[in-house]
Amino acid sequence: MIVPKFDPHGLLTAIAQDNATHQVLMVAMMNAEAVERTQLTGQAHFWSRSRQQLWLKGETSGNYLDVKEIRIDCDGDAILLLVTPRGPACHTGEITCFFTQMEFKHD
Amino acid sequence: MIVPKFDPHGLLTAIAQDNATHQVLMVAMMNAEAVERTQLTGQAHFWSRSRQQLWLKGETSGNYLDVKEIRIDCDGDAILLLVTPRGPACHTGEITCFFTQMEFKHD
Repeated sequence: MIVPKFDPHGLLTAIAQDNATHQVLMVAMMNAEAVERTQLTGQAHFWSRSRQQLWLKGETSGNYLDVKEIRIDCDGDAILLLVTPRGPACHTGEITCFFTQMEFKHD
Repeated sequence: MIVPKFDPHGLLTAIAQDNATHQVLMVAMMNAEAVERTQLTGQAHFWSRSRQQLWLKGETSGNYLDVKEIRIDCDGDAILLLVTPRGPACHTGEITCFFTQMEFKHD
């Protein structure tokens, strides 16, 4: 039985992945309340470090993440949400926050 | 231009996703050196917080992650590695660290 393991700030890392396209959409933090609200409502909740408050994703934009499945990793400090997004997950309007490619470097 | 933004501990979150199956394999931390070594070698490097040292994934197990693409998120504090794993990514022997499902709760 793996249970969520929160860091000293009471947080763990959460990843949202599109259940249909399998695109990784975004990464955010969750505290215990965000995990529980997500389990109870089926809507992705996170902890906003900048605003220091619980954050229902989509509350202002309408771009909720409907959670289809919740997975936790082997050491309990990361959660993977398999979601159906109701709109672009990124605040920039992009589908995913990972729209920027980084270059490899060569000696 | 988005550049890596490290937290006060000099770290950011890295996600490894299988480039072929699109499975999310694992989450780990990277410091600046891990990012640069990954860009230079095409092999996933992380920062081990428990061992407080640079960690070439697969160095002991042989299960290297060959990095095909590197993406960074909109605010620069998370990196997505698209990889071809040479073996199970999880130290338990599972393909992915996210092999455990969490239940939804109902009022």
